[in-house]
Amino acid sequence: MHEANILSISEADISHFSDRYRANLINCLSGYKSANLVGSKSPDGHENLAIVNSVFHIGANPPLMGMIMRPHTVPRDTLQNIKTTERFTLNNVPQSIIANAHQTSARYPADISEFNECGLTPVYQDDFAAPFVAESSLQIALELAEIKYLAINKTEMVIAHVKHIYAPQAALSNDGYLDHACLQSTAVNGLDGYYQGQKVARYAYAKAGVKPSKLAP
Amino acid sequence: MHEANILSISEADISHFSDRYRANLINCLSGYKSANLVGSKSPDGHENLAIVNSVFHIGANPPLMGMIMRPHTVPRDTLQNIKTTERFTLNNVPQSIIANAHQTSARYPADISEFNECGLTPVYQDDFAAPFVAESSLQIALELAEIKYLAINKTEMVIAHVKHIYAPQAALSNDGYLDHACLQSTAVNGLDGYYQGQKVARYAYAKAGVKPSKLAP
Repeated sequence: MHEANILSISEADISHFSDRYRANLINCLSGYKSANLVGSKSPDGHENLAIVNSVFHIGANPPLMGMIMRPHTVPRDTLQNIKTTERFTLNNVPQSIIANAHQTSARYPADISEFNECGLTPVYQDDFAAPFVAESSLQIALELAEIKYLAINKTEMVIAHVKHIYAPQAALSNDGYLDHACLQSTAVNGLDGYYQGQKVARYAYAKAGVKPSKLAP
Repeated sequence: MHEANILSISEADISHFSDRYRANLINCLSGYKSANLVGSKSPDGHENLAIVNSVFHIGANPPLMGMIMRPHTVPRDTLQNIKTTERFTLNNVPQSIIANAHQTSARYPADISEFNECGLTPVYQDDFAAPFVAESSLQIALELAEIKYLAINKTEMVIAHVKHIYAPQAALSNDGYLDHACLQSTAVNGLDGYYQGQKVARYAYAKAGVKPSKLAP
């Protein structure tokens, strides 16, 4: 990409950007990110809800998910609840609740429920201690496995076991594939951009010497 | 979600699924993931290219990105190259190269270049030691910062510094936002589903007591 309309941005350039410009740009580099709402509850009963775009797959067996938390930014109550109760939920963000989900990133006091403030409904299922989001089409119960401190930038990585999954039958294929277009899930671009997904294709397991082929829809 | 068409899948259910079913389902839980091609080169000059869907943002200042690598699966040559040379590239997957990018997940011998086998073009820029993908509209040079071993499931987390970014001017907003729809980037669903993104909206920085508002497009 050495054409005239291609920007070449060096490490020095990045260090000279304003904080906001740098935060926008670097947050966009990884590509589309998932939007998830983290539901938790403090030991004294205060419900908490925070949007995160840093959830990632760690492994399927055992089923593990991870997320990066910034203790100095908004979801600090959430992180404290996770550490104390070792239980939380992840809930997807269907297109219909994007504005509500984004609003959970505002700084509310710890004793204020983002569910109430942002117009989302807490729901409890199968005696799990943390609240799910009723409006979400994919709801996951998680139990804390461990927290790794990343000294390099003072963030914390939460690793958790998948305990329970609630999802509509219509979104699940015979082979375990869950279609996020069917779930109307939202993807995040950078810090504040929300996108819909449109399915292009699934591809068959790739083998050397065999041309790539699409799976039947 | 206690309606009849909502599936309730417990931890015990998950443990009884077949490996393939479980891999599909659990890989889908986190939501849309980014598709990235990791370019690397061995000390003896063999180029390597592998698709990964586990790249995530770690922090903007310093600019850091992370990815989870499974040493027992395909990108083992890539991981070895990263450990040895401490340099690699991340390149987005525009819709036009989805099939090529997916094909890099096949098991090729270490001395075979996935660039050649999968019809993608290596390109070198600004004396960086690792190859970029010429067909990608977003190209990032990275330097290894550290590797954390996740004993919980024997994976390795690569943390790397952003050294250089190449991106088309047209995709970059005045505030540093890089639009992946403009870049034609692909999102991944699960292990093998590829999706296009369609922008819904950007939202203003959320404040308690202030209604969520969209940014001007």
